[in-house]
Amino acid sequence: MKYKKFGEHYCIKLEKGDKIIEEITEMCKKENIKLGFFNGIGAVDNVTLSIFDTTTKEYSENNIKKDLEIANISGNVTQLDGEVLVHSHIVLSDEKMGAFGGHLKEGIISVTGEIVLRKVDGLIKREKDEDIGLNLWSI
Amino acid sequence: MKYKKFGEHYCIKLEKGDKIIEEITEMCKKENIKLGFFNGIGAVDNVTLSIFDTTTKEYSENNIKKDLEIANISGNVTQLDGEVLVHSHIVLSDEKMGAFGGHLKEGIISVTGEIVLRKVDGLIKREKDEDIGLNLWSI
Amino acid sequence: MKYKKFGEHYCIKLEKGDKIIEEITEMCKKENIKLGFFNGIGAVDNVTLSIFDTTTKEYSENNIKKDLEIANISGNVTQLDGEVLVHSHIVLSDEKMGAFGGHLKEGIISVTGEIVLRKVDGLIKREKDEDIGLNLWSI
Repeated sequence: MKYKKFGEHYCIKLEKGDKIIEEITEMCKKENIKLGFFNGIGAVDNVTLSIFDTTTKEYSENNIKKDLEIANISGNVTQLDGEVLVHSHIVLSDEKMGAFGGHLKEGIISVTGEIVLRKVDGLIKREKDEDIGLNLWSI
Repeated sequence: MKYKKFGEHYCIKLEKGDKIIEEITEMCKKENIKLGFFNGIGAVDNVTLSIFDTTTKEYSENNIKKDLEIANISGNVTQLDGEVLVHSHIVLSDEKMGAFGGHLKEGIISVTGEIVLRKVDGLIKREKDEDIGLNLWSI
Repeated sequence: MKYKKFGEHYCIKLEKGDKIIEEITEMCKKENIKLGFFNGIGAVDNVTLSIFDTTTKEYSENNIKKDLEIANISGNVTQLDGEVLVHSHIVLSDEKMGAFGGHLKEGIISVTGEIVLRKVDGLIKREKDEDIGLNLWSI
């Protein structure tokens, strides 16, 4: 993973084998980014998506190992218990162009990932919402 | 719905039961946002998508009531007849991760919506394009 | 195609018959945009997607001619051999709302395209990665 900073924009190049969430998280820690959002494209060959069940308040997971385009990845950077929390959803497409997606637990880059992250001066903390069962923005 | 302004960026937290288009529209009116664009993720459990038929120049609608992830929501804020007009498309995914999408007429948040709207200093008006049959950007 | 510049943001209105990649490329050349990223929505009726095969290092192409919503288009502007290179992925949806997507080779607008491009002061060059077989960001 490599990145280059241009003002408030971080252009992130994810490389073959890089874990998307892990790498963005590390960069934010290193660069002291407390709030931001990102958008990008690329390709993965191993991805774990999760779906939150609002009734059981549990995530079910699906791991997929095959060549997939990242048609879109979108997410944000906030703080949970004083640590960087990267929350991202993803849209993938397969060799027949069929699309699927969801909450990105983690994905491993196959070809490249081209992501632009915009740092925002400020801070948003996450706190556990007991009704919902998730760590939501506290604003 | 709650939001926090950081410079030109509005971080919008949509809450269970919130109507996406309605809430963003209200915020733009209140904050006097005439031009902007947004991007986000979240989850809905009731959503109405519409598809424009270029031949009949009419929209057909589909209402879906079930737990869905917002894999991506993208849109813009412009002006129609002096009023805020929020135009948004959405990509959704279901419990099997299958994706679908289209023009978002309205969607109701189930868990949360995390949207960042960037205000742009300027103005774009929409005007009816008689050939197309829609209110398009007038620039 | 028409566009209007507001500070570092270019609001691009693509019109019926416009080729997406071609028009954004032309605008970037004209405006001397060397680095940027964009996001948008719209509708096409003729689109060519391509999928990169990491084994053969070749793209396979699919051309689709029918009314489709652009649920999301995301991409970036960099430089290849001193020329503007627009790299974009897209998520489309059909009349039954089914979504598909991938690398956008080219697409022709049917109704409208509403894209916001953010120019970034800086420069990213692409260089051929011999292992991967593609022109990747060189940073």
